[in-house]
Parts: sequence; C-alpha cells; structure tokens
Amino acid sequence: MEPPKRDLETGGFFSILGGKMDKDKLNKMRHSCEHVLTMAVLKLYPGIKMAMGPATDDGFYFDFDEGSKLLREDDFGKIEKEMAYIITADLPINHEEVEIDKAREIFIDNEYKLEWIKEIEDRGEKKVDLYRIADFVDLCSGPHVESTGKIGPFKLLSVAGAYWRGDEKNKMLKRIYGTCFEDKKSLERYLWVIEEAKKRDHKKLGKELDLFLIDESVGVGLPIILPKGNVIIKELQKYIRGVQEEKGYQEIISPHVGKKSLWETSGHWQHYREFMYPVMKVEKEDYLIKTMNCPFHILVYKNKKRSYRELPFKVSEFATVYRYEKSGELNGLLRVREITQDDGHIFCKEDQLENEIWEVVEMTINHFKRLKMNDYVMRLSLRDKKKKDDYLGEDKVWDMAETALRKVLIKNKVNYFEGVGEAAFYGPKIDPIVKDVLGREWQFGTIQVDFMLTERFDLKYVDKDGKEKSPVMIHRAPMGSFERTLGVLIEHFGGAFPCWLAPVQIKIMPISEKQIGWAKELGRELRKNGLRVEIDDKNEPIGAKIRNGEMEKIPYMLIVGKREEEKGVVSVRKRGEKDLGVMNVNDFIARIKEDVAKCD
Amino acid sequence: MEPPKRDLETGGFFSILGGKMDKDKLNKMRHSCEHVLTMAVLKLYPGIKMAMGPATDDGFYFDFDEGSKLLREDDFGKIEKEMAYIITADLPINHEEVEIDKAREIFIDNEYKLEWIKEIEDRGEKKVDLYRIADFVDLCSGPHVESTGKIGPFKLLSVAGAYWRGDEKNKMLKRIYGTCFEDKKSLERYLWVIEEAKKRDHKKLGKELDLFLIDESVGVGLPIILPKGNVIIKELQKYIRGVQEEKGYQEIISPHVGKKSLWETSGHWQHYREFMYPVMKVEKEDYLIKTMNCPFHILVYKNKKRSYRELPFKVSEFATVYRYEKSGELNGLLRVREITQDDGHIFCKEDQLENEIWEVVEMTINHFKRLKMNDYVMRLSLRDKKKKDDYLGEDKVWDMAETALRKVLIKNKVNYFEGVGEAAFYGPKIDPIVKDVLGREWQFGTIQVDFMLTERFDLKYVDKDGKEKSPVMIHRAPMGSFERTLGVLIEHFGGAFPCWLAPVQIKIMPISEKQIGWAKELGRELRKNGLRVEIDDKNEPIGAKIRNGEMEKIPYMLIVGKREEEKGVVSVRKRGEKDLGVMNVNDFIARIKEDVAKCD
Repeated sequence: MEPPKRDLETGGFFSILGGKMDKDKLNKMRHSCEHVLTMAVLKLYPGIKMAMGPATDDGFYFDFDEGSKLLREDDFGKIEKEMAYIITADLPINHEEVEIDKAREIFIDNEYKLEWIKEIEDRGEKKVDLYRIADFVDLCSGPHVESTGKIGPFKLLSVAGAYWRGDEKNKMLKRIYGTCFEDKKSLERYLWVIEEAKKRDHKKLGKELDLFLIDESVGVGLPIILPKGNVIIKELQKYIRGVQEEKGYQEIISPHVGKKSLWETSGHWQHYREFMYPVMKVEKEDYLIKTMNCPFHILVYKNKKRSYRELPFKVSEFATVYRYEKSGELNGLLRVREITQDDGHIFCKEDQLENEIWEVVEMTINHFKRLKMNDYVMRLSLRDKKKKDDYLGEDKVWDMAETALRKVLIKNKVNYFEGVGEAAFYGPKIDPIVKDVLGREWQFGTIQVDFMLTERFDLKYVDKDGKEKSPVMIHRAPMGSFERTLGVLIEHFGGAFPCWLAPVQIKIMPISEKQIGWAKELGRELRKNGLRVEIDDKNEPIGAKIRNGEMEKIPYMLIVGKREEEKGVVSVRKRGEKDLGVMNVNDFIARIKEDVAKCD
Repeated sequence: MEPPKRDLETGGFFSILGGKMDKDKLNKMRHSCEHVLTMAVLKLYPGIKMAMGPATDDGFYFDFDEGSKLLREDDFGKIEKEMAYIITADLPINHEEVEIDKAREIFIDNEYKLEWIKEIEDRGEKKVDLYRIADFVDLCSGPHVESTGKIGPFKLLSVAGAYWRGDEKNKMLKRIYGTCFEDKKSLERYLWVIEEAKKRDHKKLGKELDLFLIDESVGVGLPIILPKGNVIIKELQKYIRGVQEEKGYQEIISPHVGKKSLWETSGHWQHYREFMYPVMKVEKEDYLIKTMNCPFHILVYKNKKRSYRELPFKVSEFATVYRYEKSGELNGLLRVREITQDDGHIFCKEDQLENEIWEVVEMTINHFKRLKMNDYVMRLSLRDKKKKDDYLGEDKVWDMAETALRKVLIKNKVNYFEGVGEAAFYGPKIDPIVKDVLGREWQFGTIQVDFMLTERFDLKYVDKDGKEKSPVMIHRAPMGSFERTLGVLIEHFGGAFPCWLAPVQIKIMPISEKQIGWAKELGRELRKNGLRVEIDDKNEPIGAKIRNGEMEKIPYMLIVGKREEEKGVVSVRKRGEKDLGVMNVNDFIARIKEDVAKCD
C-alpha cells in the first residue's frame, strides 16, 4: 500500500476555510488584508521593520522585525482598529513595476527586502513588482483586490516567534496570524471552530481522559495507548473483525521485521525509501521494520497453488507498520511514526473487481455511519497522464482500472470528486474523506487497485479452463490507522464517546460509605452483562462525584443512596440529559444495552 | 524481563531421557556404548577412520571419516550385530595413561587424533588418557562402565553429515547417532517417543494443517501465522484476556520501537545486548526494536503520581518483541526471533508481594490445566551466591525476595525444585515447566521479582502515612510466547486440537450436490451460535470427504444426506469416536457447546 499524500493528512479545514466564496477571490482578499496589517503595524509602531508574509489556506500571517517593541496579543485591539480605519477608507491597492535599482532605493533601510531584491536580480529579472496602498508600499507580485474596502470581516488570531525564512541560523522575528472571510457569519463560524477545536484538542483531552501517552523518552511519534484508549481501539477492532469475517476475510499475523528484499521486489524500497526506518544488518542480511504489509499478504496467497474457486481471496490483519516522518511534522495521534491499520488485501479475478471494490466502499461508508460521521466524499485518485515516469504499467491497464473505479462510484451514486495525479505508483485509488462535527475534513483509509505487484511477485491462479492467469490485487484499509482514528474521534466526540466506545460506560456513585457494598454488588451484576463499570468509592460529597463524572464524560452515572439500596433501584443521570429518575436495575441494563446496540 | 536460559528453551526430553537411572551412571553407559560403536565400525569397514564423539543428553554419537565407504542406515543391522557381540563378550574397558609421544605412535595414521594430541600438548599436559576394549583403543578421559556387559539395551538411530569440529572449513564427516538405556522398557519408550514426536512434529503438521508459514524470503525465525493458526492464538488470547480482566489487569499498547536509552536505563542494553537487533539511527537518535516491554509498562505506571490505593497496579499487553537468536539455533515455532507474549507487570507494595506471586502462579497452573497439561513443576530460580558480579542489588533484598517466592510455593504445596544460578540479574524467578503428552518438558512463561528497575526508573507511590515509597515490580508472562505455545500445542495434541481451540470445529459434508443448499443453511445456523464451520461442497464421494476430515483432524463431521435433510437432523461423527448416530440440530449444538465449555 502507498502512504497517503500530505495534503489531507494534516487534518484540514478544507470546507470551512473558504465558506461559499471562490478560493481565488478569498485568497486575494486575505493577501490584501495582510498588507493592511503590515501598513497598520508600521504606522503604529515606528522602528518596526516588515519582513514578509503570505496568504495561507485559512488566513494570512506576516513576520516583523520588532526592534525594541515587543508585539503581543494585547496590541491586537489597537492594530485591528487601525486596520478597520484603512479598510473603511477604501483606499485603492495599486500595482507598479520598477527597475531593480529603484526598488533598492525604496527599501534602502530594510535588509529583508534588500535580500529579496538581490534574489530577484540573481534570477536575471530586470524589474520588481510592488503594491501600494496610499504611502505604504511592499514588494509583492499580488494578486490583490482593487481597494481595501473590498476586504471582508477580519480578525487577528495570535502571535508567535519565527526565524527569518524559517532558518534557525537567522534572526528570530515576530509573526502575527490573522484571517478574513467574505462575510461575518463565515468568520464567526471559523472562529467558533478554532475555539471549539482548542477545547476538543485530542492531545489535551487524551491527557485529561487518560487515553494515550506521548513520552519524549520513548521517542517522537511513538505513542503508548493507555488502558482507556485501548478499550476504544479494541472495540473498533472487534467491530471491524466481525464485519470482515462476514465478508470472508481470513485474518493472519505477520512479523514486524522482514528482509529488505521483500520491499525491493514490491518496489516500495525504490519508491518510499524516505519513509522507511534504517536497515538493520543481521548475519549479513539486510532487514527492515515493515512500512507495508503487502509482501506478507502476498506470500500467504502464494503459499499454495490457488484455484479460481478460492477467489476472491481476502487476507486481513490489524498490523502496525512504522514510517519515518520528520519530527517537525508529527502531531499527537494524527501524524505518528507508528501506524496500526485494519489492513487487508483482496486477490480476485478481473471480472470480480467491481463487486469487490464496491464491497469495500460500502464497508467504508458503514464504518463512517457507525462513527456518526455522515458527511463524506470519495476522492477518485487518478494518474497524471503527463507524468508517465511516476507510474508503473501500461496505459491500457490504467485506463481499465480507472474506469472500473469510476463506474463503481457512479453506479452506486457515491458522492465523489476526481484527483488527477493522486494515484499510487502502481494503480488508481479511492480515498474516503470524511467531515467531523466541526466540518473539518480527514482522510480515513484507502482502497487501491494494483496490477503491478501481482506481476512482480508472479502471482497466479488456475482458471476454470485449467489455464494459469494473474489475479488483480486490491489494497484496502477502510478505517486506516487506529492511532489517527482515535485522535480524530476524540476531537469529533469532544471526548464524550458514544456508549459502545466509551472506556467507562457507567460510574456508580454511592452517596455514603454505607452503600459501597451494594455499589460493588451492582457493579458485578453490570459487568456480568458485559458493561464497563467504575465505582467512585472516594470519601467525597455526591456533588463532587457527579462533577468528576461529568468531567470524565461518562455516559451514565448511577447514584445509589439508602433509598435506592432498599428498593434495589438506581437513580440514573445520562450524560447531556441530566436526571433520568429512578429505574430498576434490569430496565437500566436494557436501556444501556439498547444504546450500545444503536451505537449511541 | 529477562530472556529464558537456553537449557529448556530447546524443548527437552529431560524426564524421559534417563528413565529411572542415575544420570551419571546412564552417561557412563552411553559413553561406553559409543566406544563399542566405534570399535564395531572400525572392525567391519577397514579404511574408515575414527574422528570423535561424545555421550549426549539422550544418547551418543560418533563422527567417522568414512573414506570410500558410504555409511548408511542400511548398515545399522550389521553394525548393531557386531556391537551386540562385543557387549555379550563382556570385555573389560580399561583406562591407561601414556606419554604424549607414545600416544602419537599409537594414532600415527589418524590425523584427527594427532590434532587432538597436539592440543593436549599445547595446554602443557604431559600425559594422555586412553581407554581400551580388547585391541581397540581411543583417546578419551572417560568415565566408562567397567566392562561392555554393563551396557544396557541400545539402538542406532540415524546418520548425518557433520564437519570436523563443527567448522564448515573442515572436512565433512559422517555422524552416527545412537542411544542406550538401563532396560528394554525405557529404550522402547524412548524410541516410541522419537517416532511419535516425528509424527507430531509441529513443522510438518503446521504445513499440513495450514497453521503457519516459514518462508525464507521473509527471514529466518520470522513465521507468518496463517488464518487457522491465528484462530488458535486469538482463542488463547481471548481466554487470557478474560482471566486478566477479572484480576484487575489494565491492557495497553506500546510501540515496537523506542529510544535505545530506555533499555540503557533498564540495564537490558548492558546485560542482553547480544539478543538485540542492531541500532537504527533516526534524526541523530538511536532507536531499537523492543526486546522487552518493561520500560513501556514502567512509563505507564510513572505517568501519574500513584497512591497506595492504586496498588497492586497491573499492566498487561499481548506484545511482540524481537530477539536476535543465531540462525543455527532457530527451530520452527519453538525458537524464533519474533516472540508475542502475554506480558504484564505488577507494581505492588512489599507486603502484597506474596499474594501477587501466588495469584500469578495459580493463573499459570490454571492455564496448564486448560491446555490439558496436568504434569508440571516450578523451578525456583535463585542467584548463585558465588557469582556476585552477575547480579544487581544487595544480599538483604535478594534474601527477602528468594524467601518470599519459596514461601509461596511451600505454603500452596506447589511441586517445585530449586535452580541455583538461574535467577535474572535483577531478581529471583519462578519458571513453570510442563510435560507434554510425550513426557517432554517445556518451559512456559516466567514470574520474576524485581527490586532494581523500580529504583533505576525512580518509581514511587504515596503510602497511607503520606510518605513516598518504592513499589516492588513483578515481571510475568504466564503463557510465555504464543508462537512457542502454538508449536508445543501442535505437538502435544498431535494437531487434534480440543474443540475450543480447533480452527475448524465442524465440517458439514453433503452426500450429494442436492444437499449443498441445506448444508449452507445449517452452516449459517451453527455460525450464528459462534461455531467455526466449513462445508465440503466438493464433488467427491462421502468416503473421501470423511477421510479428508480425519486428515484435517476436525472435531466433528456432520454428514447430511436426503434423509437428514427431510428430518432436519444430522449424522454426527466425532473425531476419535467414529459414528455418534443421528441427532437433531439443537442437541448437536448443545453437545458441542458443552465440549467447548469443558475445553475438550
């Protein structure tokens, strides 16, 4: 399988970034807003020098050499006021082209701009682009809106240190982040998402809820999944295992280490070496920690002579692979070096391809539904026909495979878009993209068609007519990485997991010490019913226990006092719904079991 | 955790090797028998030269330079006859001591003996030991029985090629293996075990029953567990997980890779470097594939400030570790480089140690019972007080820990023996040893007390009195390695797994094509009941299907013909019991479920 491309992996804000506006128009507005920011700062704080800054996917930033001034978020009010003044004045934003020498004259006091101009000169260019707003001028090749009045509602967001041109050998500058949108509603929505995302940050919640541990002494990108996080991953795996068994998958266990030659044969070594951990030499043989499971699953297929009767042949494994990612790109569970996938490979006849692809696409859609993520789109990742060298195999085969995938998506009315140049080197893919509750988009898993590896490993089956033929191979991991899924789900649910996933489903809270015995008995009864229970037997008032339970986002709290014990009932508080009143134990068990069954 | 010592790891014949006889006496007899073999071969085949050979744990062997003669198993009859003749003659076996030069004279034509004599001379020794039987003489320091008549019943077993002194640069010699015992019954028992072990060989059965795959292209010692083997491992894990949850273990997932410094802190790098895979350098940091899980479990403990209320704190994980073993020492699943353990660590107060140790010992005993291995012994592995440098920590602490372990074993009347010098470097251990159905002994898992790592990692808990104290740590893996357990169980059950472990529990065999529909319906019904079912829908006579089912050692075969379909019943054949007659489906389900529950 091919590692996912970078764009979506970081967890994006694709759909919410731009609101409804055209991306290019929004980009212009943000770029202009960045100039207005610079103009305002220079006016307000003499002595500050501008360095540089761009519009970004979700706003803009600009780096300043602040001299003796220390720019802080406290300054935002003043700066925003000045910016609003410039915008209200609706000043024209004018483009100019000047000779190199003229540009040097304009920026004579600014070493950053002079360095920039020199680079332009070194490239052999004769002229320099400038943009002017009243007396403010910056080196810039645009594009911009025509006048400052065209800039939509804006907001400054944060400050941070940043080295000039990102190089730690250079001077540390001060970066101001901001954004603007086409209308107030879109801006407010974005700001809400930012705030909400901070509250839901999986690194923060992961720590508060004891779900996982990232410890520098283990190494970057190598999380330890704590008991409560493990419950969630095991529940996800149980569910997936059940679905896959029904579809005829056979689960195996392959080692985490193998000879380098396996991945040379597969071509991964040639194409993905940069993602692989270094070679380990053992008794003169080169070994690698696995980055991909494909070669092992292929060997399982190859272990016996296969007949057409055995196809589709489906191998699966919850396997952890290790991929080198630069430490600067790692991010909690969302980008790690250790990736446990619901990996699997289907070996089938060409005429089974469409059915098998649909089975996996449908499985993926069902996974999303189960996770209460109902807003998704599939990216049909195609080759870039202009870059022939990036891909293995003949045009004819590629056309066939791309057509087959497209046909499946159209026939089953799946919401999809096409991504040219997004294919793997060995074949086209379908990449499922799903929106979380904040509207952020995430790539989950992948479905890839492969005609190459079957050839490179010389896979065959004996067809009905007795002739040997080559199977097609599908690489698939509908859930993708469990580490990443856990990270996304923490943020999606804000830590308030549905009952079937909640590490602790029920917390029993005896009002006084006298009910601890009955609480324990109750706990045993609930556990016998397969439920996950904790008992809060601390010597604390019931109000404090309830507050703790709420902080821990437990789906059900059972309060048991003298009256409850006497009657053999429980007082039930449901997360988010407060008091459900008194219930007898069997009714409560029936109720929570229904929640679990419905994945609520 | 410390890797197990070598002795038992190879899977021995401890108890059956020697019968009832004293080990030294048996060794003498076998040594003498080896001389008789040599004498017979030299007499029968002039031109053959003797090289050397020892008595071994289960017999003896001797290496011959066979010259133009090709020694084969076909020659055994003739050789054994000559040996019997020598033994019946009851010739005395006499010891002599001669000067080096005299020895050279005696063995003037034998370059192997001359090489040996030169080594004795180089060591500065003046004399050489010889043993004589009639005119036969060999270089040998004994000991031997007094005369050939004292040699018990013997048998030659096999021939194989072997390089002189095990060095592939030397000449290839021919090795003859044999054994002898104190009485005929013991010899026969041993020969039966050898034959039976061949039939039960897990490598042979593993291939026939599709349980695992060892493929050179993956690398030595790195098996792939195939779907049917995976069923067994997953059932074992399900069972162990259930037991551990009940005992309050919390399961986690730790990465397979971590910074080298983790194992430097733990001391494993200093003590077990030879078992570790080479270092991988990533962004200037040294990483290792894990050989031990301890540091990760310790970090989970250390993640929060712990109170005495949380102790005993129990962390568990089904974790795969990787240990370098020389390729020559690898053996199917019994000795591998990939070891998946039911690993776990208990952090407890000193006064909880005995209880916790007993809980693990009892858990181990219950595991054995469940696996129908009722014959076991515990080795209490103690330090060798004479080798102080081999161990960390003070005598006082060691005495305390050794006493605690011994007390637990005595108090609970556990069958045990003491192994001095078998402790880990950080503390004493209990190593459970179990006999399989052939009487061969295997070490399963380990239970180790550790006062050192808690200190090296600076672990603490806050006690009742508010003071910080150090916990004690128990390393424990009651089942040990799942790979190895699978290997042992294949041989123990001869592939005929009890129902709860059998990869396929039921095979439905329609007599004709007309019953395939009903067979499938029946299959669905049984699967709904959580049973593992296959349907043999091949176009073959029922006799052939039954033979196949027997070869595959399926616990239950259901034969369904026209009559069965009409009445909605099944004809049941149980493995080993043949025909159980006709049953209705619900009765059959109840019966097999009872087998599963009883682990039959």
